[in-house]
Amino acid sequence: MFKINENYLKLPGSYLFSTIGRKVEAYMEAHPDQSVIRLGIGDVTQPLAPAIIDALHLAVDEMAEAETFHGYAPDLGYEFLRRAMAEGDYQARGCEITADEVFISDGAKCDSGNIQEIFGTDNKIAVCDPVYPVYVDTNVMAGRAGTYDPAADTWSDVIYMPCTAKNNFVPELPKETPDLLYLCFPNNPTGSAITKAQLQEWVDYANKVGAVIIYDAAYEAYISEPGIPHTIYECEGARTCAIELRSFSKNAGFTGVRLGATIIPKDLKCGEITLHTLWARRHGTKYNGAPYIVQKAGEAVYSQAGKAQLAEQIAYYMKNARTIYQGLKDAGYQVSGGMNAPYIWLKTPGQMTSWEFFDFLLEHAQIVGTPGSGFGPSGEGYFRLTAFGSYENTVAAMERIRQI
Amino acid sequence: MFKINENYLKLPGSYLFSTIGRKVEAYMEAHPDQSVIRLGIGDVTQPLAPAIIDALHLAVDEMAEAETFHGYAPDLGYEFLRRAMAEGDYQARGCEITADEVFISDGAKCDSGNIQEIFGTDNKIAVCDPVYPVYVDTNVMAGRAGTYDPAADTWSDVIYMPCTAKNNFVPELPKETPDLLYLCFPNNPTGSAITKAQLQEWVDYANKVGAVIIYDAAYEAYISEPGIPHTIYECEGARTCAIELRSFSKNAGFTGVRLGATIIPKDLKCGEITLHTLWARRHGTKYNGAPYIVQKAGEAVYSQAGKAQLAEQIAYYMKNARTIYQGLKDAGYQVSGGMNAPYIWLKTPGQMTSWEFFDFLLEHAQIVGTPGSGFGPSGEGYFRLTAFGSYENTVAAMERIRQI
Repeated sequence: MFKINENYLKLPGSYLFSTIGRKVEAYMEAHPDQSVIRLGIGDVTQPLAPAIIDALHLAVDEMAEAETFHGYAPDLGYEFLRRAMAEGDYQARGCEITADEVFISDGAKCDSGNIQEIFGTDNKIAVCDPVYPVYVDTNVMAGRAGTYDPAADTWSDVIYMPCTAKNNFVPELPKETPDLLYLCFPNNPTGSAITKAQLQEWVDYANKVGAVIIYDAAYEAYISEPGIPHTIYECEGARTCAIELRSFSKNAGFTGVRLGATIIPKDLKCGEITLHTLWARRHGTKYNGAPYIVQKAGEAVYSQAGKAQLAEQIAYYMKNARTIYQGLKDAGYQVSGGMNAPYIWLKTPGQMTSWEFFDFLLEHAQIVGTPGSGFGPSGEGYFRLTAFGSYENTVAAMERIRQI
Repeated sequence: MFKINENYLKLPGSYLFSTIGRKVEAYMEAHPDQSVIRLGIGDVTQPLAPAIIDALHLAVDEMAEAETFHGYAPDLGYEFLRRAMAEGDYQARGCEITADEVFISDGAKCDSGNIQEIFGTDNKIAVCDPVYPVYVDTNVMAGRAGTYDPAADTWSDVIYMPCTAKNNFVPELPKETPDLLYLCFPNNPTGSAITKAQLQEWVDYANKVGAVIIYDAAYEAYISEPGIPHTIYECEGARTCAIELRSFSKNAGFTGVRLGATIIPKDLKCGEITLHTLWARRHGTKYNGAPYIVQKAGEAVYSQAGKAQLAEQIAYYMKNARTIYQGLKDAGYQVSGGMNAPYIWLKTPGQMTSWEFFDFLLEHAQIVGTPGSGFGPSGEGYFRLTAFGSYENTVAAMERIRQI
């Protein structure tokens, strides 16, 4: 008789955003006359930029003729896109990353969930708290998290690194030594950023203790201040300890187009084995390449026109971020983030729990946000709003909040 | 210090098709004047059908306007495509599969590699021999295969079900009882088909011993004879024992477009736990949906125009299949397949090993095929050619084979 993966049964409840979706749906069914503003899930709302649309149409036309048709893509990605990323995201910043260290994928969520597969199940992971749930949940599924304590909302084998107002939402080095360290900066969900000097400390630490940093740079394009690293490879020594995850979702609006990349420097080794080889084997065996037309769209992100149009798109969202930040401040909330990230992190008022505030905000202002506790125990009492709505909706949401 | 997944180190050599790619590249570099005909990897060559191209352009245009832009897709797929598949592939054939039992993905390779994740590592798998390498390799990576015996080319914990000329390339029920049974019909690599009565035996067996059948139906569109099941759900009782994998690669030329689906009936349970719930959780946590534009292209496959155009495309490839089958027969080869599948399976001549024949064919006829031994020990002494080339190349290839 077949046996299921029992680790799945340890997962409490369902995936955070599915739960939110169901709650919102139920509210809308009960109140069909109300207009709900969604500032919860980090989904973009602006259409794809014209340069990307052009690239997509061109690529579709290529698929219509035998001479220019593209079948299976190279498992690891087309050279044109790997090179565009290596040059545009790394070499242009003085970072030593080559095209063959870039692995193209269908998105950073998949990569951040799959990357743990190339590590043994006996590795100990450390995560920021609060944190993007995928890092923890996928390690639970793989049997790496131990047992769940519902009262504390923690896993016995996971090292939590609290990010609170006290440390300005940037964690301290953990007391217990981890093997795998998940870091995401600019941060989801808190919107906090890390300075290059701070990140260098993490790189030095990882090299010292022999840990791998899985660095999620999905929000890099939103950095507006100097001194904030756009990639972990700006730090010395990162090539021997860091994997970087890149997304096209937030810098180019590809949430529904699906494109991402994982960078694994060839210097990152366990004894003689490079992680580069293991990930290449994983990709070659369990993945079949991102669609040609999508990779061509990705290439357009690095074109002159694409860059200019996407800069405008990001400016649009960052105007929303400032609107939310200021709106909440004016309404008396304690608020952070929104400066180098599309996320605004606020303290729930009057000792409300995160989910109480979720219900309160949905009920009284018809605004959907994300409960901080959904991201981990230190997120309790906090709440995330995103800048990805339309400007009109964002202004309207702040108006509603002012009135409650 | 971090530890790697040691299971990866057990894998011998690299992924079959990567090895072939490298060999062909080396040959072409050494013989730049020779024209190589590729009938090796199962990649299509015909351009996308007009109905699909139209759907792609339309969907791209939708992505260009805020009002019709699509961000994150539902994790499990858009309702329009799930319904089109449930109706077109199942209900139209009298099979009881509903839209919410269809999980859309970016391809059957990913699904066939990922599906094992929802099962415990202590399950025993059984595979046909020869077999598509992904089934075995992904179980090796998960630690389910035991140790490798290089002399026998077998894994200690895998049950092999030989498919040879003696059983007409359809396996007998295994002597040892498996927990997970991988079946693929019409078969890759042998091109053999299974009758409905034969498949019913497997379904009855699986229900009796409590095994799950993972049924890969990627080549279903190539069935030309009556009495051959197009889906395992044509068999009674399949809803309590079978998962089906569907691909858009071979029926619609989506190898570079990337779309597939996994069907998990809600009746398929381990105690009270449905596999449907586990796969939904896996998809929701580790996957972020197939691209909107690709799902719209998938919908076009089920339109009137799409169906008519794709029937022509399949007829084109099947003409190639007959050309290869007859060409090889005429040249004195022992050959099977090619009737309900785009694969032709031939016995290597003169006691040559599969790889010897690979080199021989590349050297003397500049034809790339796939060595049967790459698919498992019982594939030794066999060789696979595919019908996915152009008709002109297929005819030319047979001409070359006649002359060696």
